Amino acid sequence: MPQKKWITFLTDYGLENKFIGVCHGVMARIAPESRVLDVTHLVPRGDIRHGAEIFRQAVSYLPEAVHLTVVDPGVGTPRKPVVLVVGDQLMVGPDNGLLLRAAEELGGVDAAYVLDNPQFQLDGVSNTFHGRDIFAPAAAHLAAGVAPEEFGTAVPIADLVRIPDPVRRQDGEVFHGEVVVEDRFGNLQTSLDSGFLGTGGITEGTKLEVTSGDRIVTVPFVTTFGSVAEGEPLAHIDSADRLAVAVNLGHAAEMFSLHEGDTFTLKRC
Amino acid sequence: MPQKKWITFLTDYGLENKFIGVCHGVMARIAPESRVLDVTHLVPRGDIRHGAEIFRQAVSYLPEAVHLTVVDPGVGTPRKPVVLVVGDQLMVGPDNGLLLRAAEELGGVDAAYVLDNPQFQLDGVSNTFHGRDIFAPAAAHLAAGVAPEEFGTAVPIADLVRIPDPVRRQDGEVFHGEVVVEDRFGNLQTSLDSGFLGTGGITEGTKLEVTSGDRIVTVPFVTTFGSVAEGEPLAHIDSADRLAVAVNLGHAAEMFSLHEGDTFTLKRC
Amino acid sequence: MPQKKWITFLTDYGLENKFIGVCHGVMARIAPESRVLDVTHLVPRGDIRHGAEIFRQAVSYLPEAVHLTVVDPGVGTPRKPVVLVVGDQLMVGPDNGLLLRAAEELGGVDAAYVLDNPQFQLDGVSNTFHGRDIFAPAAAHLAAGVAPEEFGTAVPIADLVRIPDPVRRQDGEVFHGEVVVEDRFGNLQTSLDSGFLGTGGITEGTKLEVTSGDRIVTVPFVTTFGSVAEGEPLAHIDSADRLAVAVNLGHAAEMFSLHEGDTFTLKRC
Repeated sequence: MPQKKWITFLTDYGLENKFIGVCHGVMARIAPESRVLDVTHLVPRGDIRHGAEIFRQAVSYLPEAVHLTVVDPGVGTPRKPVVLVVGDQLMVGPDNGLLLRAAEELGGVDAAYVLDNPQFQLDGVSNTFHGRDIFAPAAAHLAAGVAPEEFGTAVPIADLVRIPDPVRRQDGEVFHGEVVVEDRFGNLQTSLDSGFLGTGGITEGTKLEVTSGDRIVTVPFVTTFGSVAEGEPLAHIDSADRLAVAVNLGHAAEMFSLHEGDTFTLKRC
Repeated sequence: MPQKKWITFLTDYGLENKFIGVCHGVMARIAPESRVLDVTHLVPRGDIRHGAEIFRQAVSYLPEAVHLTVVDPGVGTPRKPVVLVVGDQLMVGPDNGLLLRAAEELGGVDAAYVLDNPQFQLDGVSNTFHGRDIFAPAAAHLAAGVAPEEFGTAVPIADLVRIPDPVRRQDGEVFHGEVVVEDRFGNLQTSLDSGFLGTGGITEGTKLEVTSGDRIVTVPFVTTFGSVAEGEPLAHIDSADRLAVAVNLGHAAEMFSLHEGDTFTLKRC
Repeated sequence: MPQKKWITFLTDYGLENKFIGVCHGVMARIAPESRVLDVTHLVPRGDIRHGAEIFRQAVSYLPEAVHLTVVDPGVGTPRKPVVLVVGDQLMVGPDNGLLLRAAEELGGVDAAYVLDNPQFQLDGVSNTFHGRDIFAPAAAHLAAGVAPEEFGTAVPIADLVRIPDPVRRQDGEVFHGEVVVEDRFGNLQTSLDSGFLGTGGITEGTKLEVTSGDRIVTVPFVTTFGSVAEGEPLAHIDSADRLAVAVNLGHAAEMFSLHEGDTFTLKRC
């Protein structure tokens, strides 16, 4: 394989400890000419769905790379470490659904291999830190030009672990969606995108009724936060082309008790 | 223009999400040979004055660069995205006052252009993420050697948006100042610098009386934190040559209810 | 000296301010061809023992480098800034015990010099930011090939400041240990390693009694977190080969009121 200039790196390891620095070190020793682009290391701990969604939304803006992506609550269990071949790009991480949404964003998986060749692992693999011992070495050897098939046994693509796609469907005039990412400001990104909503005749100024359990919220569909007064709720199409519910200079998640993973229905009112 | 090796990057985007990684990705795709130096991404959200002050204090330590600096509460409104030519350096960001203090630290603005040439923007500019869609692409194209005047219409320098300078004046024996940066340890950096204070005969050991509203604080002017006992307040000249009020192993902002933006008077007592 | 490609960088400076960006800037100006690998900048403020332990556990995974490591509660006091020669590697930081554990991990100190040559410092060294004014310039000049002995007076290795090693001894069937690192998830890493414990016949499934002051905790010694139910405590060998006490999906430090620096005894029960 040709060498890759870039390794992108996304985890839930946090920044307070040595974990990220150690993984950078492992990669620098194996592939000193590669450059590592940190996407984020603050995915909520063990939250595969959040990590998968962040990765999917970021990947088409990243350079052609080996994408090292690790959110791995099953470390130490039999879940498989894998490399996916995705066109000219490569993805390294646990086989727990984390990588597939991003791979499909780029056109789908062409081949997959388990990372079970000890030649490309650190000596004495630990039970708890496969980022250092298996994943970072694999990403670096791939970046240095080792072919994916040298890393281990091929995995049938249909056998890769999937996580359920977020709820997203239309039922007459009612849309069914899900909160897919809640950010630190309480903004609620949903599974509904502009093209999907467009079919329902939702345009600027439309009033929307959002219902989740016993909570009912009415929000105007607007272009910018500034279209409503301070403290007022709104719905808009965010920078990932998704419908998002927010409060101008406020915290929508708290205001509406709506959080990541909650499903809802939405209709014009 | 010659290429720039360095792009420096300072924002209020936070590190929990994909925003910084995505901007790095956009730049890596356009200017893969450039190197990005992250100054900080934890400016308080939307706080232009804080961002402007941090940038001003950092800029003379940074390498010659395209300085990409984004604190942009007005994203999506008509505020202009601009590039400033500052000697051999370039500054990219919103025209909201964020860049001017740093530009003046380096000798002042020589020319300014609006970033309105769609050729150097991503397709389908969003309403909320101009960092990704306008600013990062501009910084990367500039680093790759595109001339600033190719990005759009020239802006008269006098028309650039300014934010008020912090209060800083002497009135007989009384100095008037402002808290310009409060750090996470509660240290209060002020607008008064050593040269300015020197004219008032303030030297080591001088007792200072600081008055802000109905709060009156008396602190010794010392060289190091260790000059006072644990828990005791002090004033010193900090590493940016500014008078700062602190508490040895304590939290001055809480102790004195003094915060960023508060003005005060100071005199010898 | 030959140039070093890598400078590793570990501090307690935090990420909210300009400190890390400014140090990166200072290094970029002096040694633009070097690459800086950030280990972490979130060591608890002024906590030399924590920093020393993190650095020791990370160093053997880092590339051959100039290791710039700054946790410096004594900045501005007579404590000495030093460079240590450690085989083919170099360590720069305050002489307060921070560097020695890592140096010994790599085989020990061969020579040490005080950083007192003003030629390799910024002009007008401040009292509070030696990272910017002394340490980062030294690291960068070393990376650019300046020999360590050009930086200042040699220091006898025996005169370097040491911090006490953590408690770690066996007394018949009783082990005496210390919590050396508490992480943000409340996991408690101890001073006891697998080889040391092995001599006491502790193997998978052994029940351990841990006593610290009036707190007594009984935990099974297991291979992975998943070996116990959610909310249940466990002891395991962590990725640094240390005995660690944790709670599956819980917070051991809070559950047991055990924290960094606490000593304990441990025996089979």
